[in-house]
Amino acid sequence: MAEPESKKVKVDGTTKEAIKDEQQGTARANMDRTLQGWYSELSPMWPGQALSLKMDKILFEDRSDFQDVVVFESSTWGRVLVLDGVIQLTQRDEASYQEMIAHLPLCSIEPPKKVLVVGGGDGGVLREVSRHASLEQIDIVEIDGMVIDVAKKFFPDVAIGYEDPRVNVHVADGVKFLKETTPGTYDAIIVDSSDPIGPAQQLFERPFFESMAKALRPGGVVCTQAESIWLHLPIIKDLAQACSHTFKGGSVNYAFTSVPTYPSGIIGFMLCSTAGPKVDFKHPKNPIDDSKNANKNLQPLKYYTKELHTAAFQLPKFAQDALKDLLTS
Amino acid sequence: MAEPESKKVKVDGTTKEAIKDEQQGTARANMDRTLQGWYSELSPMWPGQALSLKMDKILFEDRSDFQDVVVFESSTWGRVLVLDGVIQLTQRDEASYQEMIAHLPLCSIEPPKKVLVVGGGDGGVLREVSRHASLEQIDIVEIDGMVIDVAKKFFPDVAIGYEDPRVNVHVADGVKFLKETTPGTYDAIIVDSSDPIGPAQQLFERPFFESMAKALRPGGVVCTQAESIWLHLPIIKDLAQACSHTFKGGSVNYAFTSVPTYPSGIIGFMLCSTAGPKVDFKHPKNPIDDSKNANKNLQPLKYYTKELHTAAFQLPKFAQDALKDLLTS
Repeated sequence: MAEPESKKVKVDGTTKEAIKDEQQGTARANMDRTLQGWYSELSPMWPGQALSLKMDKILFEDRSDFQDVVVFESSTWGRVLVLDGVIQLTQRDEASYQEMIAHLPLCSIEPPKKVLVVGGGDGGVLREVSRHASLEQIDIVEIDGMVIDVAKKFFPDVAIGYEDPRVNVHVADGVKFLKETTPGTYDAIIVDSSDPIGPAQQLFERPFFESMAKALRPGGVVCTQAESIWLHLPIIKDLAQACSHTFKGGSVNYAFTSVPTYPSGIIGFMLCSTAGPKVDFKHPKNPIDDSKNANKNLQPLKYYTKELHTAAFQLPKFAQDALKDLLTS
Repeated sequence: MAEPESKKVKVDGTTKEAIKDEQQGTARANMDRTLQGWYSELSPMWPGQALSLKMDKILFEDRSDFQDVVVFESSTWGRVLVLDGVIQLTQRDEASYQEMIAHLPLCSIEPPKKVLVVGGGDGGVLREVSRHASLEQIDIVEIDGMVIDVAKKFFPDVAIGYEDPRVNVHVADGVKFLKETTPGTYDAIIVDSSDPIGPAQQLFERPFFESMAKALRPGGVVCTQAESIWLHLPIIKDLAQACSHTFKGGSVNYAFTSVPTYPSGIIGFMLCSTAGPKVDFKHPKNPIDDSKNANKNLQPLKYYTKELHTAAFQLPKFAQDALKDLLTS
């Protein structure tokens, strides 16, 4: 592609941008951009597209035993947590993800007593889980202790979930933890994982789902992060296939929510129940009552409503067509 | 912010990227990116964020009497139409916008006979409108003839809407056109506009909504592009306020859909009905039947379903709270 005239001038970043600004409001001004001071989320998981956020300041940058961990202050989305180059959450839109991944399963069953969170080291899922007053035990198994420490330091409104006295933290491998769990222990398991490359890969594989099914009581539920219907329909189909095999006699469903800073602007969840008392995910039976939050310091819900719960299962026609034989109606 | 060591080397774009690739899978690799050969959608309408798409080739670049018009081939989202620097559609995700803006209003009323499209020069809304076999007259008023020509040349699957013999094209100012329209003419008006800066600004103002209300039959409906609840809640509140005043005795509602290449990944619609036969947008009464498409060359629906129609009105709690006093339940 031919370079615009202005780009041929040998100047520093600032001057280049100034020249570009003369073309503001044209497509040309937005081509071949030098995004100095911006974060551009490129990944082989979503080739040819990238969300960029303007950075005000890098607050933390290190490598744990498992991954590259970075926190930066963005100009308009608040603080951002990045693992292995992929945006995990921003302060401005994290609620839609955390609330939906927690309340879609927990509001679908009789008031639960024991819950396990796999991954979710930032504490956001814990925060949402802890709204449920019925819970007696909240376990979390996160492989990377650095993520927990970083969340507590830089994302106090997210990591507030750790303050709940019902929470037991296990810094360990979730796959191994679940293999060793006494069968029938949990009412619900929530898997807040990163993408199926890197440390989270096994969390998308069939043996892991079989361990979860065993660890659940009859009619217990699992909710796992399950990518975007726009970008990863083949991954979702494979997952649905594995689940329909593993959760025979129960149910398998898929819902999605809007998260602007995730690739394609949405993310989905695979929801399954084991054989036992019937779970109808689309018509929740355990409404959440914000006024009964065990932790009085929690902000009210920002995203989840009972009506949105049901609406989240209505898939666009192209996704419905692709998944209809694998999902429970 | 300190530049990473690799950026200090004076090399061309290719070599720079090669150096960066050694850091693949880290946040650092994605900072201060030189996005050579990419399109980055920066705009004061969404400061601090930008979606970037990799460009394979620029197919068209010109300035009309009204705006800067560009078409490029992207590597993974198909062809892209850009007006005044803002992405209007990509081949891969345009259906979710076009289908929802057309069928949300048209499926909510008795089978319509006369419809007006304002804007929508690419023809995508026409394509969706033309699925409704009941229609006798489809008018479109688009201010910019270049957009129509460009769509016919580069987006034949979108501009196919123009092939319908019921379509009457008016290359004219929509505001003026509506002022001169005989009162009570249309069953539905659909406003497929760009953002409220540039040529579309007046389409977000109260006098325009008053013209539309006059041009509709009693119980007629309007559906207008109405931005993103994540980014533009104040604009949406103003619009809802204006509409609740203009459509007294009728109804005012808001729905949204997922469009990955629009800022924040979603876009919304303001739906109003004039006083007259009651319109219940959330429970559509005029199901669409793909098998009865007047134009047999149309592809089947990709996004819209009856169930998704109803689901689209379920707003996240923060948006529901902000708009609840202005919207009809």
